[in-house]
Amino acid sequence: METKRALEGVKILDFTRVYSGPYCTMLLADLGAEVVKIEAQGRGDDSRNFYPVKNGVSGYFTYLNRGKKSITLNLKSEKGRQMALELAKWADVVVENFSAGTIGRLGLGYEDICKVNPRIVYASISGFGQSGPYSRKAAYDGIAQAMGGMVNLTGYPDQTPVKVGPAISDAATGVHAAVAILAALWHREHTGEGQYIDMSMMDTVFSFLENSVPIMTMMGINPERLGNGNPGSAPYNLYKCKDGMIMIATANNSLFTRLINVMGQPELIEDPRFATNPERKLHEHDIDPIVEAWTMQHDAAEIEKMLDAVGVPVAQIKTVEELIDDPQLNQRDMLVEHDIPGVGKVKYPGNPLKLQKTPPVTNRRAPLLGEDSEQILKDILHCSDEQIVELREEGIV
Amino acid sequence: METKRALEGVKILDFTRVYSGPYCTMLLADLGAEVVKIEAQGRGDDSRNFYPVKNGVSGYFTYLNRGKKSITLNLKSEKGRQMALELAKWADVVVENFSAGTIGRLGLGYEDICKVNPRIVYASISGFGQSGPYSRKAAYDGIAQAMGGMVNLTGYPDQTPVKVGPAISDAATGVHAAVAILAALWHREHTGEGQYIDMSMMDTVFSFLENSVPIMTMMGINPERLGNGNPGSAPYNLYKCKDGMIMIATANNSLFTRLINVMGQPELIEDPRFATNPERKLHEHDIDPIVEAWTMQHDAAEIEKMLDAVGVPVAQIKTVEELIDDPQLNQRDMLVEHDIPGVGKVKYPGNPLKLQKTPPVTNRRAPLLGEDSEQILKDILHCSDEQIVELREEGIV
Repeated sequence: METKRALEGVKILDFTRVYSGPYCTMLLADLGAEVVKIEAQGRGDDSRNFYPVKNGVSGYFTYLNRGKKSITLNLKSEKGRQMALELAKWADVVVENFSAGTIGRLGLGYEDICKVNPRIVYASISGFGQSGPYSRKAAYDGIAQAMGGMVNLTGYPDQTPVKVGPAISDAATGVHAAVAILAALWHREHTGEGQYIDMSMMDTVFSFLENSVPIMTMMGINPERLGNGNPGSAPYNLYKCKDGMIMIATANNSLFTRLINVMGQPELIEDPRFATNPERKLHEHDIDPIVEAWTMQHDAAEIEKMLDAVGVPVAQIKTVEELIDDPQLNQRDMLVEHDIPGVGKVKYPGNPLKLQKTPPVTNRRAPLLGEDSEQILKDILHCSDEQIVELREEGIV
Repeated sequence: METKRALEGVKILDFTRVYSGPYCTMLLADLGAEVVKIEAQGRGDDSRNFYPVKNGVSGYFTYLNRGKKSITLNLKSEKGRQMALELAKWADVVVENFSAGTIGRLGLGYEDICKVNPRIVYASISGFGQSGPYSRKAAYDGIAQAMGGMVNLTGYPDQTPVKVGPAISDAATGVHAAVAILAALWHREHTGEGQYIDMSMMDTVFSFLENSVPIMTMMGINPERLGNGNPGSAPYNLYKCKDGMIMIATANNSLFTRLINVMGQPELIEDPRFATNPERKLHEHDIDPIVEAWTMQHDAAEIEKMLDAVGVPVAQIKTVEELIDDPQLNQRDMLVEHDIPGVGKVKYPGNPLKLQKTPPVTNRRAPLLGEDSEQILKDILHCSDEQIVELREEGIV
């Protein structure tokens, strides 16, 4: 018996490339949507050449495109465009993340698709949105992180700011787009009405700034980066230990008392500088060295064990190599292995959407370029074998 | 005429506190879901005391709880528990983010709710998920970031790692939970079947690592943090300029050529070290100082203008204070102002889910503690005035 999937029957026409859009459609494909990815004829998604590449195969692409079908199309030809419109008739959802305005110039914008399928849910993802003074500005992840306020809030206070390593503005916008698409599908199911969705990476970064905006607008304080510290609590930091670093986070007297008991210094709570969380925050530069003098005497694993035992939040700084073998991630199906043609077995992150009756299906590897062209041409576009040969000869497919 | 909203009619019973859960239900409330937030009788959501606080009102809470209704309930009393079960009969969705196992001990876990409402979609959010070796481990955002691999990948290569400033593991898990809930609702609409969703902050952080996992599993390279650099491209960095810093990102010859033309050094492309993107990445330590020697001669705004004009990705490092007045964010309704009782007018981030026909509604301020208790007791639980007086006297509400 095949596993039931939540989005069984939802059809997505996917013009997305690289990261934000593909992350969105990967989440939906894992949940059971049928995703037909249109790739540039001859070349494919740019990320097919993105680092890491082994034997000509990109691990970047193969991570983010599992469970999708690939058809190549030359969208700059009128025949290719017409075929894309036919596919849009079949689809419930279109997703694209070209730079703002590009897909409209290809004759495949929302208005174009609406003419053939007025019920379509059509989501665009771009750096800054489809309109407004920045809409034509070029964007990569680092640009969106900087413009949305994330970079200035990350790093040590006495040093230059630093962007988040992985491209979180892409991933965050991708997952927000998935929320928007599912909400729009719900609306369509109940009213018959499709619509356009205009997602911006800068918007989503700005939406991810926690309490930073009210700190400014309520208190008049322009928030600054705090390293590994917390604006309201101490001790809450990254501390050196015998064999590396350890993160310890306390935010109230109960946790602090448990920490100093483990440290063998229960008397610290009687010091007026450390008697309450606000006092400790005020005297952070006094309490942090005391904690670090203790952590320096132990290995990270040892500290984690001692503090876990009493429920004090503590973490080792995990590297990716360690996470591949992590028992929690493995038990939760957060590592999946695909057999990739030309490369062999490769592990990828699983899907965090843990629906218990309709769990995400993550075992279908990413398609080769145009791997499903023939099937899609036959099943959805009803092409004959002769027509398919012709389309290939003309360089349309 | 009232604005149509996508999730009109969806009823959510919200046990969430602080950040991850409230971010999830805020997104859904803005889209039109009716969210009834249960807060601890007498005390409320812990984040009602979280920084920033002015005149006893938290900007942390009021940002994340707009558009929701608040009822207080003593969940440790049997009567309070029974009332929560009655509310769960009314609801389509339950969301909670207590530490793993806590709500089950209150007699309000998935099995308990299922007995009174078998069609419920029930989402739990926790640090590490409901089962597995870490499930009882204490979690704050920094802990989840460290355990999920984000901290080790953020910061400068020659310095200690640094967590992302804002608590992105909370926000990312909240928005992923919203995807899971909407997918489960879709499934229920088509099959009648509700289900349980088990979200983990560590899972979502791990899912946000871009290409880091395949770098390890395909190439055998344990990825390291790169500061503001990019693993595959150069020049791509944060550069000092006359009045601060500027981020410039090029990833191919077209962008690089445009950059060096603006710099007045078109001959650089003829230097074999800088002839291709892979060569430039290899000689990053040669090209970055050349770019910085140029940026140092100009103000950030001036550089942005010159590079925007030729389509080279460029960004100033925006502070929150600057973003409050940002023309793009303001044009896109990404700043909303609420009149908060006891505080006055405060601006918050808007909602990035830009559905065009059913736009998010963000103009309803967060509720006072228990502000909607009476209405909910009457309309949903059909209590009489006498019963309400009694419940208040008994400290249940």
